[in-house]
Amino acid sequence: MALKAQVLYDFTAEPGNNELTVKEGETVTITNQHIGGGWIEAQNSRGDVGLVPIDYVELNKSALPSFPAAGTAAPAAGVGNIVNSDLSFFDAFAPTSTQQNQVDTRRLSPQPDTPDTPVSPYFTSPDEANSNGNDPWSAWNADPSAGASNNSASNPDGTQTGRAAAGDSWGVAAQGHPQAYQGPGAEDDEWDDEWDDKSTAGYGEVESGDGNAMQRGGAHASMKLKFPGFSKSGPELYLLCKQIAKGKDKLPIYMGEVGPVWLYPESQLDCVVADPKKGSKMYGLKSYIEYQITPNTTNRPVNHRYKHFDWLYERLLDKFGSAIPIPSLPDKQVTGRFEEEFIKMRMERLQGWMSRMCRHPVIASSEVFQLFLTYKDEKDWKTGKRKAEKDETVGVMIFTTIEPEAADLDPIEVEQKCEQFNRFTKAMDDGVKEILTVGHEHWKRCTGPLPKEYQRIGKAFQNLSSVFTSSGYQGEETLTDAMTAAGKTYEEIAQLVAEQPKKDLHFLMETNNEYKGLLGCFPDTIGVHKAAIDKVKEGDKLVATNKITPQEKVTMAKRVSTMSYALQAEMNHFHSNRIYDYNRVMQLYLEEQVKFYETIAAKLRQAHSQFTTM
Amino acid sequence: MALKAQVLYDFTAEPGNNELTVKEGETVTITNQHIGGGWIEAQNSRGDVGLVPIDYVELNKSALPSFPAAGTAAPAAGVGNIVNSDLSFFDAFAPTSTQQNQVDTRRLSPQPDTPDTPVSPYFTSPDEANSNGNDPWSAWNADPSAGASNNSASNPDGTQTGRAAAGDSWGVAAQGHPQAYQGPGAEDDEWDDEWDDKSTAGYGEVESGDGNAMQRGGAHASMKLKFPGFSKSGPELYLLCKQIAKGKDKLPIYMGEVGPVWLYPESQLDCVVADPKKGSKMYGLKSYIEYQITPNTTNRPVNHRYKHFDWLYERLLDKFGSAIPIPSLPDKQVTGRFEEEFIKMRMERLQGWMSRMCRHPVIASSEVFQLFLTYKDEKDWKTGKRKAEKDETVGVMIFTTIEPEAADLDPIEVEQKCEQFNRFTKAMDDGVKEILTVGHEHWKRCTGPLPKEYQRIGKAFQNLSSVFTSSGYQGEETLTDAMTAAGKTYEEIAQLVAEQPKKDLHFLMETNNEYKGLLGCFPDTIGVHKAAIDKVKEGDKLVATNKITPQEKVTMAKRVSTMSYALQAEMNHFHSNRIYDYNRVMQLYLEEQVKFYETIAAKLRQAHSQFTTM
Repeated sequence: MALKAQVLYDFTAEPGNNELTVKEGETVTITNQHIGGGWIEAQNSRGDVGLVPIDYVELNKSALPSFPAAGTAAPAAGVGNIVNSDLSFFDAFAPTSTQQNQVDTRRLSPQPDTPDTPVSPYFTSPDEANSNGNDPWSAWNADPSAGASNNSASNPDGTQTGRAAAGDSWGVAAQGHPQAYQGPGAEDDEWDDEWDDKSTAGYGEVESGDGNAMQRGGAHASMKLKFPGFSKSGPELYLLCKQIAKGKDKLPIYMGEVGPVWLYPESQLDCVVADPKKGSKMYGLKSYIEYQITPNTTNRPVNHRYKHFDWLYERLLDKFGSAIPIPSLPDKQVTGRFEEEFIKMRMERLQGWMSRMCRHPVIASSEVFQLFLTYKDEKDWKTGKRKAEKDETVGVMIFTTIEPEAADLDPIEVEQKCEQFNRFTKAMDDGVKEILTVGHEHWKRCTGPLPKEYQRIGKAFQNLSSVFTSSGYQGEETLTDAMTAAGKTYEEIAQLVAEQPKKDLHFLMETNNEYKGLLGCFPDTIGVHKAAIDKVKEGDKLVATNKITPQEKVTMAKRVSTMSYALQAEMNHFHSNRIYDYNRVMQLYLEEQVKFYETIAAKLRQAHSQFTTM
Repeated sequence: MALKAQVLYDFTAEPGNNELTVKEGETVTITNQHIGGGWIEAQNSRGDVGLVPIDYVELNKSALPSFPAAGTAAPAAGVGNIVNSDLSFFDAFAPTSTQQNQVDTRRLSPQPDTPDTPVSPYFTSPDEANSNGNDPWSAWNADPSAGASNNSASNPDGTQTGRAAAGDSWGVAAQGHPQAYQGPGAEDDEWDDEWDDKSTAGYGEVESGDGNAMQRGGAHASMKLKFPGFSKSGPELYLLCKQIAKGKDKLPIYMGEVGPVWLYPESQLDCVVADPKKGSKMYGLKSYIEYQITPNTTNRPVNHRYKHFDWLYERLLDKFGSAIPIPSLPDKQVTGRFEEEFIKMRMERLQGWMSRMCRHPVIASSEVFQLFLTYKDEKDWKTGKRKAEKDETVGVMIFTTIEPEAADLDPIEVEQKCEQFNRFTKAMDDGVKEILTVGHEHWKRCTGPLPKEYQRIGKAFQNLSSVFTSSGYQGEETLTDAMTAAGKTYEEIAQLVAEQPKKDLHFLMETNNEYKGLLGCFPDTIGVHKAAIDKVKEGDKLVATNKITPQEKVTMAKRVSTMSYALQAEMNHFHSNRIYDYNRVMQLYLEEQVKFYETIAAKLRQAHSQFTTM
């Protein structure tokens, strides 16, 4: 069935990149959904075919079969069928979603009937599309604005909105506020799920919701600490706090060969994210994906839905964000109108995110992370959830738990370290973005113009061969057969070229994309340190104006030194992981590239052997 | 020295082909003259850099050093120096040419002083440029008009003008008519050379010139025969000619396995065109290239200038053109503003042309061709030259020398054969043009966007590597060194990609270009047969109206059968050569392609080995 799609925004093709210029409102036919790289191949009314960003088009509802409008099991079955076809989640659920809104209104009143409001997380809201939210490569686009909008942690505002949005959806979840509908897809999903949970877990969950909402308040406070510009308080919350609780949950920092390091465990925690299962509720009107996470410690799988990952992210950001950059969840970068592709991509990125968290000694050993990986049963999970949400050692207060076993640093030295790290992360951020930009271009060429050209070469050889066959001259079968084979070989090469990026460039891009997200968190983390350093600089003035006692000034210097050790430990952790990751991905890339060129060479040698040597 | 050039014609860049859009009259800077493929890289005033067809720009005279305006040896020396630089022949000789015009005017009066008229054959006259005459690939362009204008034999008009022009220049040569200056470069060259000859050979040459001019008349007559449409006479000149001289210079046709074939010699004639020498006359004011041709029969080298090749071409076309397609000389397709490139290319193509002529049993054994290859001395050459020019067995009269040793063919059968050959040559012409078009595109991509992209990938790796080096973290030299090496490798790959077309695609293009020229001659050759067949069809009517006797009708049928045998022998010759040539060129292409991909794979394997395996 030819998939028609509506163009949501103007897109101007970049010359030579096999792109297709489309205008808002135009209807195009999807000719290939499996280009990858956030692109689909579309054909316009004039028959021109080219690549269009997947998030610039919206599949036509009209292209869908219609359902009976009753909330029975029947449509659910229908949905299942469509989902198994190559239709997008949006296609599959748009009509039923509408129905569901009606169901919702029956359940939650007062509730405005909003039949046109997207419910499926796979639906692209204009906002998302504007920010290329559904294009995984778009995060790899050099355009910083696009980058920022794709990675909520990549700049302060991004973080603010990112967390605010999550907060709303969460708060909304507790109160079932209709505005939840207006948020981006993911939040809608959260809302539905929360609503589902409520219907099952009842009021208990609402309480947690309230505690949770309160917690948000704390979260936002800790948030402000990150931006002294906007803040009355700032890091002095830690620098000047009266007494620091001893003994419990301490984070020691040791002096290693490379300088300050976290305490690393004997055995490295890791986990496998696998086996995504589609669950459904409300007689199949509501569907969700549940992933199975198996830690190497217990080897006992636990199930989590995306919203649980998001909850974990929020906890980790609240608790460790000031000392440890917590990369945002893949969500904002992941794409896919088409279920399988989407789930595969999301799972791959959740796996990457989890592995990175497992590799961090502080996070891996944290109570909330262990809970996520090893909760015994629903009750265990809910209890742990509430406890984590009530944790008050969040924001800059995390530094109260850090204990460096080393001499205090001179504030000057602290400032130098801080600036050095800032320079490096900025430079690496640029370097990573450059690779992403080049890779993005290369991806398009390899899936677009290049294979087309090899195909044309192949066709030209075969065509000439068939002309030769028509000569009526005797005894040229060897030549014509060989030429046909050579032609076919170039068609195979075209195929190889088009497939290759998924085999090598993909992982190079994924790793750099992960690092782009990670590096985007450093400005916040470093910002906290800068604020603290500035505060310490004011020390004398503050003493003179009796704002603080001389003793408190000494304490501040001591504590900023602790913060600096934490930052150094974190940088050293970052460096060792960076070296490991880039060593791995470069090897993988080059290995696949070697295979690629060797395969082509072998094919051509085979083709060559078919000619009679003279 | 930055080479400035004037844009002669508007050129609109094709998207994604690394081309530069230029407007007539615009001044650009030549940034790379060695792109090949008839392209140069130019930069416009806005700093944009891209490819422009070499024949769309004219190098500025202003960019040239100025000379003393005296016709002494001094400027000649000066010229030598410049020629060794990367300046074009035009650049090198423009000023001296002007001086020479002045010299000419002193010698040949009445003579208008035409200082602005080009004299060097390397100067591109607008006409030449219009016909892409200086772009070797342009002959490979799908655009048939371009094709035609590049190959004077590729259509009747083309042939007409081609020969007419030659005729003029030749006639002019005899009379030293100033209009010679107006013709395209090559003719000017002829004129100068002829004028030089005169100054040495004196009036004798003028006589030969006259005889020659008469001969032209014959030539034009035989020319007309090829286009019955324009002709009162037509092939009946042969079909009805009274008696056919017996015995002398007969061209037998035997029945071979594949059908009628020419008589092939025991040993294959071949020759080597090599060692181009720059000669100069008039105290170095006048310069020319002399090639050394060594046949494998005598192994004694003879020297010829381009004008001699052109003379040979004219003779062969006159004498055999009706029975045997004579591909036009490379001249019209060859390019090069830059001396070495130009001479190399022209020699390569003269070699190709000569080898093809050598491989043809009829041409190889002809008196005129043997004279060209084996003349003993200047006197011997001039005598043979005059004799050849007086030869009257030209045009359709060549068929009087053909003696098939086979039963006469039924006119119906003759017509069928003729149509079959026509269909095949047309189909092959299309197939060849398709390869040329695709190859043309591929050439641009391989020399343009693709290497640029590999270069950017290489730079991105190296850049990230140097950022890593700045981390201050210990013990990552292995990684950074390996990443730098990988980056350099991709820059090397960029180089390989850009160089590759000259190693493989070039020969594929050259061979197909040769065949394009050759196939372009068939319509004329086949046209003669069609005209003869039509005439025979009229047989009865002609008898009825007493235009011919019944006996003459019988004779016509017999002779058209002879013509058909000739055509079949020629087609069989064409086929066997085609099989040989394509077998050879396809093998060479694939061999080089295999080497190319293996080299890249090896380089990448080397780069991969530098990473520490984990």
